[in-house]
Amino acid sequence: MLKEEKTMKSEKVYEGKVLNLKIDTVELPDKGYSKREIVEHPGGVAIITITANREMVLVKQYRKAVEDFVLEIPAGKLEVNEEPRETAIRELREETSLEAKKLSYITEFYTSPGYSSEKIHLFLAEDLIEVDPQPDSGEFIEKVTLPLDDLLRMIERGEIMDSKTIIGVFIAMRFLEKN
Amino acid sequence: MLKEEKTMKSEKVYEGKVLNLKIDTVELPDKGYSKREIVEHPGGVAIITITANREMVLVKQYRKAVEDFVLEIPAGKLEVNEEPRETAIRELREETSLEAKKLSYITEFYTSPGYSSEKIHLFLAEDLIEVDPQPDSGEFIEKVTLPLDDLLRMIERGEIMDSKTIIGVFIAMRFLEKN
Repeated sequence: MLKEEKTMKSEKVYEGKVLNLKIDTVELPDKGYSKREIVEHPGGVAIITITANREMVLVKQYRKAVEDFVLEIPAGKLEVNEEPRETAIRELREETSLEAKKLSYITEFYTSPGYSSEKIHLFLAEDLIEVDPQPDSGEFIEKVTLPLDDLLRMIERGEIMDSKTIIGVFIAMRFLEKN
Repeated sequence: MLKEEKTMKSEKVYEGKVLNLKIDTVELPDKGYSKREIVEHPGGVAIITITANREMVLVKQYRKAVEDFVLEIPAGKLEVNEEPRETAIRELREETSLEAKKLSYITEFYTSPGYSSEKIHLFLAEDLIEVDPQPDSGEFIEKVTLPLDDLLRMIERGEIMDSKTIIGVFIAMRFLEKN
């Protein structure tokens, strides 16, 4: 029988701009104690786009955490008092200069529940129209539009390295198969 | 033209058992400076299992970081000097009491490249045989075996909340379609 881990102590180690770090001391089901190193993250959104030509719009950017350029679906973290849908509209516009006439909530998931609270809310954007660029200052990104069939092959060749993007491509393919 | 972010300063904020936290000051392409809060994680493995009956073996456990029980494919972090394949064999045995006669490397991906270095190496385990349980002490998990078709529906209903598990189910489905 699985049981929750009771928090016996919680120590904040770092409070930052994007994330906090805390060390929780928990009581295990066998009454032993253990420590959990936990990243507190506000969560974010990610946006699957499907164009009229079965293409998807992605962004490429340098990610210091992995010291590499990463191809990802448009995404961003939730600002204070922002609903995920608003974040999705804002980030899609900032990162790709696109507006979706149809924006559907798809699902939500944890990126790494073993140590991080980050949850991503996934949206599907259709009927896309180009709008005036309104880039977020300090973001250096390149917009890349690719056929969904190519993206599937890129996943199989290990060329798509970001988890939310792999999930987004698979979900877009299933959506197209059904519609 | 995208450019790497040059590290101007790197400050270690926390060194832990599972992860470290550092704050890097970087130089942006426009020569401005910015801070990056970065979780250093050793990376890990995750294992897609496919049984003779088109089922997958998963584990359910309490995850303090998200304060919930999460259904995941077997996984674990790389120990020092451990090859991903060894980790996969060890974790599959510890978490599910299974040994795979066939273990194939599938791909690798970042769980959250915006702030974490964590990379997961994904394996596919086939021809599974039951072995003596060798649980990792201090792990409280429940083994759950489910048909792959059910798992796909559970993803669509938002009942599978873990990113590596969503990816694992989609890849297993594609593998079955092709073989």
